[in-house]
Amino acid sequence: MVAMTTRTEKDFLGTVKIPSESLYGINSLRASENFGLVGGSVNKRLLCAFGLVKLACLKTNASLGYIPQDIAAAIETACNELSAGTLNPGIELGALQGGAGTSTNMLVNETLTNRALQLLGKPCGSYDIISPHGHLNLHQSTNDTYPTALKVAAIYACDELEQSLSSLTDAFQEKEKQFAEVVKLGRTEFQDAVPMTAGQQFGAYAEAFSKDRWRLYKCRERLRVVNLGGTAIGTGLGADQKYIFMVVEQLKKLTNLPLARAENLIQSTQNCDEFVEVSGILKAHASNLFKVSSDLRFLSSGPEGGIGEVRIPPRQEGSSIMPGKVNPVILEMTSQIAIQAIAHDSAVTAAAMNSHLELNALMPLLADNLLKMIEILIEASERLRKYCIDQIKVDPDKCRQRLDASTAVITAFISKIGYDKASQIVSRAAAEKKTIKELLLEENLCKNEEYEYLTSADAALTLGFRKKNENAKDT
Amino acid sequence: MVAMTTRTEKDFLGTVKIPSESLYGINSLRASENFGLVGGSVNKRLLCAFGLVKLACLKTNASLGYIPQDIAAAIETACNELSAGTLNPGIELGALQGGAGTSTNMLVNETLTNRALQLLGKPCGSYDIISPHGHLNLHQSTNDTYPTALKVAAIYACDELEQSLSSLTDAFQEKEKQFAEVVKLGRTEFQDAVPMTAGQQFGAYAEAFSKDRWRLYKCRERLRVVNLGGTAIGTGLGADQKYIFMVVEQLKKLTNLPLARAENLIQSTQNCDEFVEVSGILKAHASNLFKVSSDLRFLSSGPEGGIGEVRIPPRQEGSSIMPGKVNPVILEMTSQIAIQAIAHDSAVTAAAMNSHLELNALMPLLADNLLKMIEILIEASERLRKYCIDQIKVDPDKCRQRLDASTAVITAFISKIGYDKASQIVSRAAAEKKTIKELLLEENLCKNEEYEYLTSADAALTLGFRKKNENAKDT
Amino acid sequence: MVAMTTRTEKDFLGTVKIPSESLYGINSLRASENFGLVGGSVNKRLLCAFGLVKLACLKTNASLGYIPQDIAAAIETACNELSAGTLNPGIELGALQGGAGTSTNMLVNETLTNRALQLLGKPCGSYDIISPHGHLNLHQSTNDTYPTALKVAAIYACDELEQSLSSLTDAFQEKEKQFAEVVKLGRTEFQDAVPMTAGQQFGAYAEAFSKDRWRLYKCRERLRVVNLGGTAIGTGLGADQKYIFMVVEQLKKLTNLPLARAENLIQSTQNCDEFVEVSGILKAHASNLFKVSSDLRFLSSGPEGGIGEVRIPPRQEGSSIMPGKVNPVILEMTSQIAIQAIAHDSAVTAAAMNSHLELNALMPLLADNLLKMIEILIEASERLRKYCIDQIKVDPDKCRQRLDASTAVITAFISKIGYDKASQIVSRAAAEKKTIKELLLEENLCKNEEYEYLTSADAALTLGFRKKNENAKDT
Amino acid sequence: MVAMTTRTEKDFLGTVKIPSESLYGINSLRASENFGLVGGSVNKRLLCAFGLVKLACLKTNASLGYIPQDIAAAIETACNELSAGTLNPGIELGALQGGAGTSTNMLVNETLTNRALQLLGKPCGSYDIISPHGHLNLHQSTNDTYPTALKVAAIYACDELEQSLSSLTDAFQEKEKQFAEVVKLGRTEFQDAVPMTAGQQFGAYAEAFSKDRWRLYKCRERLRVVNLGGTAIGTGLGADQKYIFMVVEQLKKLTNLPLARAENLIQSTQNCDEFVEVSGILKAHASNLFKVSSDLRFLSSGPEGGIGEVRIPPRQEGSSIMPGKVNPVILEMTSQIAIQAIAHDSAVTAAAMNSHLELNALMPLLADNLLKMIEILIEASERLRKYCIDQIKVDPDKCRQRLDASTAVITAFISKIGYDKASQIVSRAAAEKKTIKELLLEENLCKNEEYEYLTSADAALTLGFRKKNENAKDT
Repeated sequence: MVAMTTRTEKDFLGTVKIPSESLYGINSLRASENFGLVGGSVNKRLLCAFGLVKLACLKTNASLGYIPQDIAAAIETACNELSAGTLNPGIELGALQGGAGTSTNMLVNETLTNRALQLLGKPCGSYDIISPHGHLNLHQSTNDTYPTALKVAAIYACDELEQSLSSLTDAFQEKEKQFAEVVKLGRTEFQDAVPMTAGQQFGAYAEAFSKDRWRLYKCRERLRVVNLGGTAIGTGLGADQKYIFMVVEQLKKLTNLPLARAENLIQSTQNCDEFVEVSGILKAHASNLFKVSSDLRFLSSGPEGGIGEVRIPPRQEGSSIMPGKVNPVILEMTSQIAIQAIAHDSAVTAAAMNSHLELNALMPLLADNLLKMIEILIEASERLRKYCIDQIKVDPDKCRQRLDASTAVITAFISKIGYDKASQIVSRAAAEKKTIKELLLEENLCKNEEYEYLTSADAALTLGFRKKNENAKDT
Repeated sequence: MVAMTTRTEKDFLGTVKIPSESLYGINSLRASENFGLVGGSVNKRLLCAFGLVKLACLKTNASLGYIPQDIAAAIETACNELSAGTLNPGIELGALQGGAGTSTNMLVNETLTNRALQLLGKPCGSYDIISPHGHLNLHQSTNDTYPTALKVAAIYACDELEQSLSSLTDAFQEKEKQFAEVVKLGRTEFQDAVPMTAGQQFGAYAEAFSKDRWRLYKCRERLRVVNLGGTAIGTGLGADQKYIFMVVEQLKKLTNLPLARAENLIQSTQNCDEFVEVSGILKAHASNLFKVSSDLRFLSSGPEGGIGEVRIPPRQEGSSIMPGKVNPVILEMTSQIAIQAIAHDSAVTAAAMNSHLELNALMPLLADNLLKMIEILIEASERLRKYCIDQIKVDPDKCRQRLDASTAVITAFISKIGYDKASQIVSRAAAEKKTIKELLLEENLCKNEEYEYLTSADAALTLGFRKKNENAKDT
Repeated sequence: MVAMTTRTEKDFLGTVKIPSESLYGINSLRASENFGLVGGSVNKRLLCAFGLVKLACLKTNASLGYIPQDIAAAIETACNELSAGTLNPGIELGALQGGAGTSTNMLVNETLTNRALQLLGKPCGSYDIISPHGHLNLHQSTNDTYPTALKVAAIYACDELEQSLSSLTDAFQEKEKQFAEVVKLGRTEFQDAVPMTAGQQFGAYAEAFSKDRWRLYKCRERLRVVNLGGTAIGTGLGADQKYIFMVVEQLKKLTNLPLARAENLIQSTQNCDEFVEVSGILKAHASNLFKVSSDLRFLSSGPEGGIGEVRIPPRQEGSSIMPGKVNPVILEMTSQIAIQAIAHDSAVTAAAMNSHLELNALMPLLADNLLKMIEILIEASERLRKYCIDQIKVDPDKCRQRLDASTAVITAFISKIGYDKASQIVSRAAAEKKTIKELLLEENLCKNEEYEYLTSADAALTLGFRKKNENAKDT
Repeated sequence: MVAMTTRTEKDFLGTVKIPSESLYGINSLRASENFGLVGGSVNKRLLCAFGLVKLACLKTNASLGYIPQDIAAAIETACNELSAGTLNPGIELGALQGGAGTSTNMLVNETLTNRALQLLGKPCGSYDIISPHGHLNLHQSTNDTYPTALKVAAIYACDELEQSLSSLTDAFQEKEKQFAEVVKLGRTEFQDAVPMTAGQQFGAYAEAFSKDRWRLYKCRERLRVVNLGGTAIGTGLGADQKYIFMVVEQLKKLTNLPLARAENLIQSTQNCDEFVEVSGILKAHASNLFKVSSDLRFLSSGPEGGIGEVRIPPRQEGSSIMPGKVNPVILEMTSQIAIQAIAHDSAVTAAAMNSHLELNALMPLLADNLLKMIEILIEASERLRKYCIDQIKVDPDKCRQRLDASTAVITAFISKIGYDKASQIVSRAAAEKKTIKELLLEENLCKNEEYEYLTSADAALTLGFRKKNENAKDT
């Protein structure tokens, strides 16, 4: 067995030995011991965004002459690797770490430092050449870089979600067209109500997600104001004023996002209300996902012993006991994601409200829940579209048959035959076990074509009725 | 207009004028100004329970010679009126009052004092004769009387809920018997699965509520340990040790509840974990209520265009547009109550976790949500039973018809004909639009009587199958 | 005892006797029996808004010739009374009623009908003259009027909240100015961090509420699109097309709100995502309320044994045991309201996500929680301002003294003396129990005036530092 | 590049190619495609517990003659590997999978089948020899094995948590002893209240966790009743009755847990209320964790500019800007875990309440949240003890000094000098900026020794007071 060579690092608590080639340093190691992998690992999106934030700081500091050219170049490369997701720090930290994110910030600082040293051909740990504090954290604090990185990561994730939602909306709109002619029973409170088309139903779903998509666009606005430059509590203490005025502009360029520096950096450092708002908006989307997936689970119930109006594509065997059983697994995944997203929102809210004084120490909790929330919502959109909506079908015969069987179809005839007659017909239908159609024809209250028309897609698509005398006037 | 006569009361903030005959005093009035009716009024159950707690303190203090006979007698009468709900303080305080319940305690102290003065024929406000602090709060603090009163109120409310749940369980068991012979389709993931009886279904609901009932019994255990005697922080500072050792016994006698003094009064004063636990247990009941009411809403859907296996009693007209529409209003009320109860639980939890140091200042929030939670759960149980379950019906024909129509019925024949043959039959059924029964008879795979038996209530009620050779052995 | 005279009303379930003069009718009575007062009474704001919605429908119907002049005039008066809050239906319905709000709609219809009959000098119940269905519900459904009334009520309530928040923000800004010169310790993670001013602190609070105020403005946008005209499921079935095109315009005029008809009425009828979004946005405000009230509770702790930097105005006696104890009751009320608001949000979300198919049957749950949420937030804003912030003080001496006592003050000198020297000073301070100031002067690292300047309000208000050579360049 | 050899597997959807040596099969592969890693991977504890459940089924089936000896032996080895955590299926499935856990069950079935085939020297995929359905799922369903495995996993996890909590409680009790003599200020509503000892404070924390430990013991009772043997919906359809009566006994033996078969298997299959209850109970523990960690964060605030009575062990550098800053990172981790646990509870509850009819399709969501919840609570207990409580200190001087500085110390003298005199002294103290002690001595109201005694640990530990005449009697 070969002895592992180590280097020694030091902080005010003492010294530790670290494998010589490790990119992480003493702060990361202590954090790893303190928090393990509690709550899973720090979100990858956050680390990538940190790469961009550190790069913006580096470039600003370099342009102000704080960092020599060659060192800046090496750090820049390291930052780019981190933001591209190709730089592995060699250690993972727990998502629910204490310390308001200091450990993640220091993991980033140490990793970038040592990677830059590597690039310069220097041994890791040569902090006299490049220093995690002196170069990588210069004019910075966890308290401004961490929330800024989180905002960048969250906007990017929201953008992805917006793309997914856009495709999902398209998929529903496609079905709206495809089912335009399928007449079916509209139901309120699970009870037979009035005729509508399957196209209208899927159109309503499309519209719900279309609103969600617009909401995501709004999320960007909420997240684009950052506190970078505020350092510890928003007073910018320890940072060069020039740097403060330049760094967000630099980040804006690098991220290609419409970022802006908060006017009140102190406020921006201590409050997390924007995250609550964004999470609250995403919750509206989650509630739509739950509603739509529940509807489709209900409408695809059966197939014979349930509603069976909707046919979802089979994706996997549903049972080892029941031959041919197909379960709505993608819809069930979607329902679960919606609930999980809402649980994430509750954690985001609790994290935000428990900010104290000049800083929210629970930022890691907030960050982890917010990013996970967006990520699973992306999964929901993508998979729901690809594996369910794209191939979903309705059964026009079953739709029609349920409509005709229902006494609720009478509502389409009330403006013709009056409420009282309609009530009579309904009573007779129940008593004599006849359909409304049979009775209407039997009593000569309408002709077959009229029945067909008033229960047609065209009729359902007409908003309200036009009064007869209006038509009379027309002629 | 007659001038209202007033009396003047005083505290360290100054003086206020109060209508001469008012039972409430300066502390109540200030609280009323401070909090208005924020979050509604203080729960009546809490005030009633406070009557008992104050009576226990009074009797203990009197027995130790701290309160003269005649004054004690008058206060006792006042306490009894308060606990009976017949004593109106003449002012209502906001449920979400600050101050850990001090205002409610002082409202009680002032009201009881002035009522006792009235009974002695003395003017209200004669605090030199009877004093809200000196007599009514003697050896006490809000911090021990308030949580104790809350526990008493909560136990009583849980007992009521337990009674309601007991009746609800009975109602479901009645239906279990009534529907014992009705065979129907069991469904998993909303998909047709295997045969069962409607009796089994309602029996499962009965069992769920039976477990809830047992849970309530456990709630009592969690709530019966009180911190009365601990005064401000649980050290009993300012209270006579003899009083401390006697007062809970006295309360036990008065309430007829198995109360006990907390061994660690400091812990008991600052932590509200018992309330979280009780609320968490009640949440389990709420989840059952939601599940059962959702099921029944689904199963009563239609009637023609939905599942329609269950018929709920009509309670009110459902629509002005759709003749004869009956909505499952009692079930919908139940679903809403379940959600509301769970929201109350989240407030209880947040209130409890935000206790600080030696006291939880958010007790009023906790109290209000806990008591409201139990109260609406009582409403749910009572109304669900009386207005829905007692008269609920199933439609045996529809149940049978859906079962026969479903290919899922094949599962009952697999142990007879094998999985592969079963799969074939299912495929043929789909392709040829025939029923499983038709195909089984057609292919001579079973006889009519066998079909009837294997899809009968008896078969559904038999746990698993008995191997043929086992039967052979029997003969 | 005088016999009460009654009238008889009838629906498809049978007949009931109602006191002759009662404004409510059979539907209200049945609802009252079914739901009692479960969850408290229907929110008054909802009933008032219903008055406006019904008036808009009435006027539109009248202008189309559906309602005779005299009847329309009587109904108009009744509607105005309802919206003004002066019309008492004589019965209260439970907030958590089943039926998607049908009972509230019918209570409104019946009350307005009978009140209009009274105004015409006709006996209540003369439904052949004016009919709850025929006149008051003409071209309407619960499913479009109820959500519309809720949106109107919610916008008005949000407007009120916005006013309150505006005043609250002003109050904090006033304090920002007042405390502009008070230097104090900024704290992160409860640990001494860097200098700041009390003005900055209160300015940050002002800014947080200022954002909340802007949020409320956005809530209006979310709520202004209504589904009035859609009737049962959004197809407008049973309504005159002309009416549909006119009625929202009418409501817009009557409410003076920028309302618009939903383009997709079907979607708008079945989804409640806007309410989730609004509730989510309000939750962001609640999280700020909690944060600020927690901070102030912490900073006013003591007074001697805690932080004691902030002095809140005494509002009531805090204890019967501890002389002179003043508790932060208004702040505690505020904290509780924030938690309660968040609990309401969770109920709103659960209600919204449990919409099914063409309608959300749980609208009453949603409505009750949303309106209560806004109402208690108004209370928080108003009372927090009036009873706390307006008279809040800081203790400049204590602020200064804590700053000077803290080793954290060294951070203000790092750019002058360097990090390493600073660390040494901190170590000496701990070891020798001396203050940083003493050591800095002792080691001749700065002069007294420099110390005063670098720990002054001016220094704290300067964003970052300006490099010395920059200053050099300036000269 | 070498071509990978594959085998072909088939289900009713078609065929797929799988690497020849893969332990997973077609069902796992389809699930992987459908769900990816949504919500992370399936919890390892669940897979381990599944190994035990499958082993119990295998042994029961083997003993009934359903599985040949050699095959049974191979499967047994595979099961043992799975439960030991040493069998890697070669694929991971998403935690939030649809299908009620069918995919996890099939992953287990396929993996065990192929591992057993390997052990017998047969190629993977030789399902004619050992079959995932025929042997591994014999007499079983996802719907009974999955919840049973979850319960086994949850009990084991609760047992671990109970151990951790036991050690944590011990650690607090150790501190209770250590700080027994340290007198300090008790605080209510953050305001100075009455004297107590630091020992009492830590004793209260110990007691809270001691109750939590007892709660965990109760969790076991809730979880020990399983539905194994019920197959698809609890009727045991498709299972041999002898198997049903034997299998839980077998599992009991294998797990060494006091398991029992549910009396009502149908109820047990469709309801998840036990999980809600357990999660609710764990939430009570989480609320204690939050309370205690908040308290300690508050009490360790400063150090100079805050309360500073408690000194937590430094675990890592707290700031790159502020020399020597130590943050309460372990306590902050603990607070975050508490919030996260409560968020998990809300997901568990929502999953449970959304069960439908004979099965809860959202079991995977429930399982994932419940197990994660317990796991992070274990982390909290372990790390809080090891890295914080074991080395925590109090500063006796600061404690004493804050007590003496506070006017609240007067409460200890009220029973001696009376409330009115006490109030006077307090007023003078404020006006003259003197301490209570100074004034008491000055006014000759007590002697120095008396002051010392009445503010001593002994006095604080005495419950209430003993009346003077009582003492007289004693002599």
